[in-house]
Amino acid sequence: MATRLKLLDAAIECLSELGWRDTTVTVVTKRAGVSRGAVQHYFTDRDGLFAAAIEHVADTRLAELRRRASSFPTGKGRTLAIVEGFVDLHLGQLFGATLQLCVAASADPVLRPQVAAMEEQMGKQVYFAAVELLGLDPRDSKVRTTIQAFLDSARGLGLASFLGDDRARRKGVVQRWAELIDTTLEPHDSR
Amino acid sequence: MATRLKLLDAAIECLSELGWRDTTVTVVTKRAGVSRGAVQHYFTDRDGLFAAAIEHVADTRLAELRRRASSFPTGKGRTLAIVEGFVDLHLGQLFGATLQLCVAASADPVLRPQVAAMEEQMGKQVYFAAVELLGLDPRDSKVRTTIQAFLDSARGLGLASFLGDDRARRKGVVQRWAELIDTTLEPHDSR
Repeated sequence: MATRLKLLDAAIECLSELGWRDTTVTVVTKRAGVSRGAVQHYFTDRDGLFAAAIEHVADTRLAELRRRASSFPTGKGRTLAIVEGFVDLHLGQLFGATLQLCVAASADPVLRPQVAAMEEQMGKQVYFAAVELLGLDPRDSKVRTTIQAFLDSARGLGLASFLGDDRARRKGVVQRWAELIDTTLEPHDSR
Repeated sequence: MATRLKLLDAAIECLSELGWRDTTVTVVTKRAGVSRGAVQHYFTDRDGLFAAAIEHVADTRLAELRRRASSFPTGKGRTLAIVEGFVDLHLGQLFGATLQLCVAASADPVLRPQVAAMEEQMGKQVYFAAVELLGLDPRDSKVRTTIQAFLDSARGLGLASFLGDDRARRKGVVQRWAELIDTTLEPHDSR
């Protein structure tokens, strides 16, 4: 099991740093410090490794989200902390790996449906997690379009961070999103 | 001049469809229907061709923006038309080429500063064009963070459209952005 996880982590690291094409079985096993035979044992081949790595991206991002959920404050400052948490989800290595997969998938008929399915599933889970943490009604159409606009914005901020340090600008956008959510959406009755 | 433009257009098409690495001089000249000598004549080498293609991406996107600007209605529906226009800027082949360049640049020390500079310049021009068309005050900090959040959202929608048809969801987000801009921002005094 440790070997399997080492391979998945290494696959994500390599994807993020080197891109889809340079992330060969040789490169990943070297990074993981395991034999090429381990890939064969756990995943049969390169396609099997990446199918598992795609799920691993999704699982790791959701685990990160759940880990953060328990540390958000209640009352004043809660919305800002949640907005920051969801924007942070779209930064760093995990988002880098996802972006590499998306770009590679757009031109690859085998990879594309896998990555599209992962993104759709992740999109739904992230949306419902955001709405629940913010105490909003997921069936309200204004909530739906606002939180989707926010999550698209978080993705766009992730893309912008890819080319350079964007922290100061991002901070202003994050604060504005907290205001927009607090001032334009009603809390859900059930809270 | 026609040959030069053919090469730049072909470079963008190939970048969008094939990605950075597969967009070789041979592939681009074949697509453009010109000789390899033309690249040498106009751009010296591959690096020169892509430096020019990067500027061409920026110029083409800004020209598209200016072309749309004259067709936006006045009064009711204007904000929605402008929001749609700016979201459309982030869809299709031109955004695909930009995305490929961004992803390739993140791992390439020569390409990275060129693409980062193009993105920064484009970001500023798109921001000021949006604020001006919407009749807002570019020095108001609420305007700045809201319109930046909107443009990040447009980028995120572009990324989402890369993997599949996202039109229905996008329409809802576009309408919500028009509402958010109309209801939370004050028109600029000078209008």
